[in-house]
Amino acid sequence: MSFDLSSFDRAYWQDRNVLVTGGASFIGSHLTDLLVELGARVSVADDLSSGRRENLADQLERDAITFHEVDLRDAESVRTVLTGVDTVFHLAAAHGGRGYVDLHQSACAENLYLDGLVFRTAAGLGVDKVVFASSGCIYPLHIQGDLDSELKLTEDLAGPPYNPDGMYGNAKLMGELTLRAMHQDTGLKAASCRYFTVYGPRGIENHAVMAMMGRALVRQSPFEIWGDGRQIRNWTHVYDIVRGTVLAGERISDGSAVNLGTTERVTVLDAAQTICELADHTAEFAFRTDMPVGPVNRVADNTLAAELLGWTPQVPFAEGVRSTFAWYRAHRDPAVLGEVLESLLTSRGEHVPVLTGV
Amino acid sequence: MSFDLSSFDRAYWQDRNVLVTGGASFIGSHLTDLLVELGARVSVADDLSSGRRENLADQLERDAITFHEVDLRDAESVRTVLTGVDTVFHLAAAHGGRGYVDLHQSACAENLYLDGLVFRTAAGLGVDKVVFASSGCIYPLHIQGDLDSELKLTEDLAGPPYNPDGMYGNAKLMGELTLRAMHQDTGLKAASCRYFTVYGPRGIENHAVMAMMGRALVRQSPFEIWGDGRQIRNWTHVYDIVRGTVLAGERISDGSAVNLGTTERVTVLDAAQTICELADHTAEFAFRTDMPVGPVNRVADNTLAAELLGWTPQVPFAEGVRSTFAWYRAHRDPAVLGEVLESLLTSRGEHVPVLTGV
Repeated sequence: MSFDLSSFDRAYWQDRNVLVTGGASFIGSHLTDLLVELGARVSVADDLSSGRRENLADQLERDAITFHEVDLRDAESVRTVLTGVDTVFHLAAAHGGRGYVDLHQSACAENLYLDGLVFRTAAGLGVDKVVFASSGCIYPLHIQGDLDSELKLTEDLAGPPYNPDGMYGNAKLMGELTLRAMHQDTGLKAASCRYFTVYGPRGIENHAVMAMMGRALVRQSPFEIWGDGRQIRNWTHVYDIVRGTVLAGERISDGSAVNLGTTERVTVLDAAQTICELADHTAEFAFRTDMPVGPVNRVADNTLAAELLGWTPQVPFAEGVRSTFAWYRAHRDPAVLGEVLESLLTSRGEHVPVLTGV
Repeated sequence: MSFDLSSFDRAYWQDRNVLVTGGASFIGSHLTDLLVELGARVSVADDLSSGRRENLADQLERDAITFHEVDLRDAESVRTVLTGVDTVFHLAAAHGGRGYVDLHQSACAENLYLDGLVFRTAAGLGVDKVVFASSGCIYPLHIQGDLDSELKLTEDLAGPPYNPDGMYGNAKLMGELTLRAMHQDTGLKAASCRYFTVYGPRGIENHAVMAMMGRALVRQSPFEIWGDGRQIRNWTHVYDIVRGTVLAGERISDGSAVNLGTTERVTVLDAAQTICELADHTAEFAFRTDMPVGPVNRVADNTLAAELLGWTPQVPFAEGVRSTFAWYRAHRDPAVLGEVLESLLTSRGEHVPVLTGV
């Protein structure tokens, strides 16, 4: 992985004290890598409930980061890891793919508490800026129901009226609104990044693209697709996501929320076909219309990110899925994967560590 | 104050360990009184940020309750006060009248954290039931904008799509949704009560009815009314509110939310005229259209409360406002009140203790 660092303000990040919560996760670890590359002093706080120490192996070996294995629902731990921090990137959350967030509403509701604890502690300790990992899940479900619509979700479409995607979306929305209110009332600097269906190396099979790679790798036949396969997404590569997140941390302070997502419209069926081709896997598709699918048409507008951050996505889906599958194939043992794939699909990813290194 | 106790299951409450958070507040203290009368073992947790020890004076003198002066944003304190509790009535919140909740969004957002902490701690300690003080503020603002509508807010109108009344309403809605999810996922027993514009003895001038009583008592002239006075509310007497809350604690376990509010449609102007008459105060009205007024038409439907709880409100507004004004006049010194009334209107009620006893 290598980033073009020219778009960042190197002086801003150099020796800046930065904390990444959930930094051992898929997205969090890439964000950590980028921040280290930019010269920041990076700490990571992660309870390893779904994050993996292996995701940070390079940084840990080089002693390039400080790693705190802590549960951030504990106030004293939050205080400890936030002390002396200039910017906190708050990614830690009860989180998973469609199969997890739909079936674990009360776990996702706990993010309300977790986020509140992190924000109030950060404000109390005088942390300079909070960057919050929000989600496309905050957008109203009722405007994402028409397959024939070319709608791109602009930031203002969030509402009110609100209709987020379950408790996961509710909590992300509340996180955003809380930060905006804190900025207005107390001047706390803040930014929210709305991530859209992220994929890439270190991804977990509880998200659609990685699940499809898993099915292809174990040569599942018939090849299962959740729903009728016509759902539209704008899968966005994790490199683009973490680039945008760091730029938001640099350039947004007023609590604004910005979409980080491509404008490519890709159906689940198209993605499945692409991935099966990459894997040289030929199979009938079996459409599991009994499984949760989420909104049928969710694609970001990214004009605001271009305006505020100078950010546009740089990894087209065709290219990203190819390089990600190359990584994936190198890091999964099909025999082991076959045993756990089904349970992975609706999990937070707890089973992943048995599979492979990074 | 005397309650008809015949509608309650006395055996259920007898010696039951009950905690009232925010129990030194206006509503919380009346709830505490009723629970004591029903034979429960009542503890109160309150940080006295807006609650007042005087509201509990009778109970404290008789050693009839255990009083904890604690900040419930502290995890250890929450654990302490919830240990051994069977039912927690969770009323503690950053809360005030229109002037407070509209102007203190980030303070109200902290209720997300506070509620989450109380709920997760209660579940962890095996508390049998959580009864949550929710609010009419959870109803969508966009259906409360038509003065000519006779709409009564039935519980299902909450949404989605959601459009609660600011961060205060957002947090109350999230509290409800969290409890419902916890019940579904873990079996935690829970009930939410949506309070509608409560008034009565021990009320504070940051709410409209008490504010108008204050203006009448200090003989304000011209007599100020926020907005054009045509806003419609269903002011509900605190006796009815706490009766319904206890019944919900007795009879609802599945996390359902129920309205507690009358169906009387009273305009702010009507209420002002009634109160000025009670005070023998004649003055021109001055309409402060620059001040926050909230939704113009908010009235509850209470069919569900009748069905689930056998609850109907017993105090008509005309009667309730008369008896409340009698209490009010006996407990306020117009000279002192005149000095602080303006600041009280947008406060949480911190200034009240200088005014009077109960």
